[in-house]
Amino acid sequence: MSNGFMGQLLRVNLTEGKITVENLREEWTRKFIGGSGLATRYLYDEVPVGVDPLGDDNKLIFMTGPLTGTPSASASRYSVVAKSPLTGIWGHANSGGSFGPALKKSGYDGVIFEGISPAPVYLRIDRGQAQLCDASHLWGKIVPETEDLLQQGSSENLTIASIGPAGENLVRYAAIMNNKHRAAGRCGVGAVMGSKRVKAVVCSGQERIPVARPDAFREDAKKQIDYLNESMLKVGFDSFGTNMVADMVNIRGGYPTRNWQEGVYDAIEEVNAQAVTDKILVQGVNCFACPVSCGRSTEIREGKWQGRKGEGPEYESANTLGALCGVSDLNAITEANYRCNEYGLDTISTGACIAFAIECCTRGLLRPEQTGGREFRFGDADLVVDLIDKIARREGVGDLLAEGTRAMAQRIGQAAEHFAMNVKGLELPAYDPRAAKITGLGFVTANRGGDHMTAYIQGPTFIDVPFLLVEESQIQDPFAVNPREAQVVVDMENALTVMDATGGCKFMGILVTAADLATLISDVTGWEFGVDEFRKSGERIYNLMRAFCVREGITREQDALPGRLLQDPLPAGAAEGMVIESEMLERLKDAYYEFRGWDKSTGIPTPDKLRELGLDDLVSDLW
Amino acid sequence: MSNGFMGQLLRVNLTEGKITVENLREEWTRKFIGGSGLATRYLYDEVPVGVDPLGDDNKLIFMTGPLTGTPSASASRYSVVAKSPLTGIWGHANSGGSFGPALKKSGYDGVIFEGISPAPVYLRIDRGQAQLCDASHLWGKIVPETEDLLQQGSSENLTIASIGPAGENLVRYAAIMNNKHRAAGRCGVGAVMGSKRVKAVVCSGQERIPVARPDAFREDAKKQIDYLNESMLKVGFDSFGTNMVADMVNIRGGYPTRNWQEGVYDAIEEVNAQAVTDKILVQGVNCFACPVSCGRSTEIREGKWQGRKGEGPEYESANTLGALCGVSDLNAITEANYRCNEYGLDTISTGACIAFAIECCTRGLLRPEQTGGREFRFGDADLVVDLIDKIARREGVGDLLAEGTRAMAQRIGQAAEHFAMNVKGLELPAYDPRAAKITGLGFVTANRGGDHMTAYIQGPTFIDVPFLLVEESQIQDPFAVNPREAQVVVDMENALTVMDATGGCKFMGILVTAADLATLISDVTGWEFGVDEFRKSGERIYNLMRAFCVREGITREQDALPGRLLQDPLPAGAAEGMVIESEMLERLKDAYYEFRGWDKSTGIPTPDKLRELGLDDLVSDLW
Repeated sequence: MSNGFMGQLLRVNLTEGKITVENLREEWTRKFIGGSGLATRYLYDEVPVGVDPLGDDNKLIFMTGPLTGTPSASASRYSVVAKSPLTGIWGHANSGGSFGPALKKSGYDGVIFEGISPAPVYLRIDRGQAQLCDASHLWGKIVPETEDLLQQGSSENLTIASIGPAGENLVRYAAIMNNKHRAAGRCGVGAVMGSKRVKAVVCSGQERIPVARPDAFREDAKKQIDYLNESMLKVGFDSFGTNMVADMVNIRGGYPTRNWQEGVYDAIEEVNAQAVTDKILVQGVNCFACPVSCGRSTEIREGKWQGRKGEGPEYESANTLGALCGVSDLNAITEANYRCNEYGLDTISTGACIAFAIECCTRGLLRPEQTGGREFRFGDADLVVDLIDKIARREGVGDLLAEGTRAMAQRIGQAAEHFAMNVKGLELPAYDPRAAKITGLGFVTANRGGDHMTAYIQGPTFIDVPFLLVEESQIQDPFAVNPREAQVVVDMENALTVMDATGGCKFMGILVTAADLATLISDVTGWEFGVDEFRKSGERIYNLMRAFCVREGITREQDALPGRLLQDPLPAGAAEGMVIESEMLERLKDAYYEFRGWDKSTGIPTPDKLRELGLDDLVSDLW
Repeated sequence: MSNGFMGQLLRVNLTEGKITVENLREEWTRKFIGGSGLATRYLYDEVPVGVDPLGDDNKLIFMTGPLTGTPSASASRYSVVAKSPLTGIWGHANSGGSFGPALKKSGYDGVIFEGISPAPVYLRIDRGQAQLCDASHLWGKIVPETEDLLQQGSSENLTIASIGPAGENLVRYAAIMNNKHRAAGRCGVGAVMGSKRVKAVVCSGQERIPVARPDAFREDAKKQIDYLNESMLKVGFDSFGTNMVADMVNIRGGYPTRNWQEGVYDAIEEVNAQAVTDKILVQGVNCFACPVSCGRSTEIREGKWQGRKGEGPEYESANTLGALCGVSDLNAITEANYRCNEYGLDTISTGACIAFAIECCTRGLLRPEQTGGREFRFGDADLVVDLIDKIARREGVGDLLAEGTRAMAQRIGQAAEHFAMNVKGLELPAYDPRAAKITGLGFVTANRGGDHMTAYIQGPTFIDVPFLLVEESQIQDPFAVNPREAQVVVDMENALTVMDATGGCKFMGILVTAADLATLISDVTGWEFGVDEFRKSGERIYNLMRAFCVREGITREQDALPGRLLQDPLPAGAAEGMVIESEMLERLKDAYYEFRGWDKSTGIPTPDKLRELGLDDLVSDLW
């Protein structure tokens, strides 16, 4: 087996309670690398089209990458892949902290869960030995309690990924949590885990990760860490965390407010990074091997939640649980964030579903008898906190909200669809593309649905941070989009897809070139992995993910934005009067499919493109 | 006259003591805008080829731009243009603070000094009235004393640009200082002022600057200030000042150390921004109308200079008076910086001349009888401080050092030329191009000689800060240069040339697009000034400056780097083993001249290019 990998997978048949160790398919590592890339290849091959995401034919795949757990900068990450119960297509979530490294050092690059356990279990991996253990005493427990109970009685330091009540209750955007506060948040991977009755994965291994050229690796990795240490990125993130960008997005008029009715939040000063620093910050928190402390350890210091501690809010959570719901009370936002972490809920989808419900209420589309008699209004902080409890427990109106905005709109009625802010069922993150239009293309082409981390084209636009990882990422005018800029979206998608596959953090793509990263991959694996292969690998994996979605029915038609972004001009701020013109979006899509080598009328990868990428076996599935 | 301009120039004939007010040549403002662009057109037309830079045929031209003094972000700057006594070609220096705005609000866009005054004078401009006043009591005084003496007895707040003893003594890299600590530093413009016996320019005007579309201007300018306020640039610069980049350059192996013998400074922790913050910082300082406090008000708190106060060191000064001379004592570096400011010396050239002299000494090329018996060694902090006194007064060996590295090498002998670190006579700033090779092209093509602020290609390379002001500025590999990246240098030169012409600060080019800046220019002038004209204006001005240099004898041959950069590999660090290969540089120059439309064999702008730019009258001068 190549260096950089442990060379083995755990396959856990939950229905039968049987665990098998199998060799990692080596021929796939070179083509799909690891992480979400490699996991998707297993998913594509093993999960047939049309299965119920919460049924026993779906699989839940944890996968690390060749850099995960090595001392290269920010290589802390693992991916989870499954068919998503929220979107019905390719589902993916990714998280940092220290779980990825711990899993890998347990001796396994990844775990494939299949079937459904008759009773709650957790997977314990100890010195290479894996076993399924009874989890009935943990079922129903929130995440920190679960971790504490699992840790009790062990003198070793265990690293744990688990679900909370939200995952158990099949909330369609339930997250998998690790290190208590870190979330593999999106696409409802926590619900898949809940459907399989797996409460947790517990690791304690300390195996050595084999590195092909240890001296070169140490030197090249150190160089990148040194760069990171001496970067403006570190200065900014150490001081202010990811929420630093709140002011930058707001000033550009794209800070989603009151369910995307506005793009400028009048109370931004109460919820921005300075407010977090002044009111709740305890200290910055870093992931495994990362010199940047962009995480925020926080404590509520006043009011009814005084004394509560946790992590966050990060940028997305501060927006979706704050401005998006019209809430400006930072303590309430923080409490809402803590509860999402404890229940195991994706903060983006949670905030988005609440904001959507509020707007439905204000427009009379959701009636008091449906909301338990309570009037939903923007700015009601207690409502947000209360609804999180209800969602996690599927109590009352929470049962509706637990389905996600797309399903909610289908039940509430057509008038609501216009402002159900999702793409392909995935709730949109906190960057309004009306204020930087090329980001709208990124939302519609992201394989997991409306997502910012796939292309992170928000970096070069909203926060003026181009990415060295691609050859060119500069965007000039936020409003007058040039179709050739679709190439930037393609390049960013491909490059960041490789980043996910390796186990690295995408923020590093700001400072590290494709050549730098290819060198690291070569050092660790022993492959001669150059820039061309780097780019080709990204493209191959991206096409594979698209193929999974196409097989599930995605075509050009579904690469679409919610009506509000196309029709409702932003009322004020730097992007006042702006919409995403449909015709502009279609022209961008034309250019995008062309750059991708996909069929323009359907958005399906052409047979020629698939063959060029060595994905010949997919041709008959798609054509 | 167009809005944005006061419409008048002062022409000061020093020989005759006669001041005339003349209308600004309006047809030139649209073509050359203002600042260094417009000033160069006057210089080109009025100063014949071959004049002695310190003789009475040279002229010294102060010029503001249409944005200078307006409330647009960082529009604080004025330019000074003359034939340089250091380089013998086009000379230019630029400074912020509040002198530019004060000069303009006195009612004049600029001042042209011509001839030589029989006795020391200063120019006083008060409510539109200008007069030459006796400066004999000021002659010999250092800058802060000069400002204080001029301010004495005036109840108004006067804004002053002046020279110190260095300018009076014709040190070839003497600066013009304003606001006591700010320098129009480069090319020896202070020596030209000294040769004309002008001690100072004193302004107190408060006239209104006419703006064509005040409402639009206010709104557009505010938008840019808002962006700046919410930028990582501000976070970094407010916290750490320009010296923030020291670590970034050092880690890339291009921090000039011991006269460019090394690119990594072992004592970086003692002289970096954190050290400045810990040891000497009083507070950040901003320029007129700028929300970023990148300046450093400082105080020496211990040792023999305890209690001394001033501003700096900025990044360049910290390097050239520090690592470049092997000095790690931050208090000594700060004292050296204060003295440069007081005498009116360019810190870059000063430190470079001292470092060069030290290396000459260590190699036996400068003998004890030439140095007054003192042995020059790297790391001798007292030596650096003492030599500054000697240079400013032209005492002993200081008389040699006052000539600049090129002339020093000519006198010391051919063996020294290899490490006389200048291009076209201008001492190089603190970025070693062996560590980011495209920056070497920027050094040889900058019109004023070896300079970083002309293209500031160091931004996208050494500190990973691309410039939105150009369409593309990303550079991938610091060592494997692609000739097409010469286009980035061309684009940066053109764009930043416009920035100088408008009166803006180049750092804004990181955040502001050409379209943004063109809009501001339109708002203030009333012109319909678009992106195309923006780029064309930059190109026109750049060609005019080149034409001035060509007329003085510059051809492709002089677009060359010192031998050390071509032949001596860096001994350690991220750029270990690197040189600028001659052949690579020539290929980059080929590409550069081609992108510029210049004759490849000579580097002279072709007649076609000149005509295309509306510079038809230059053709017969160059061809």
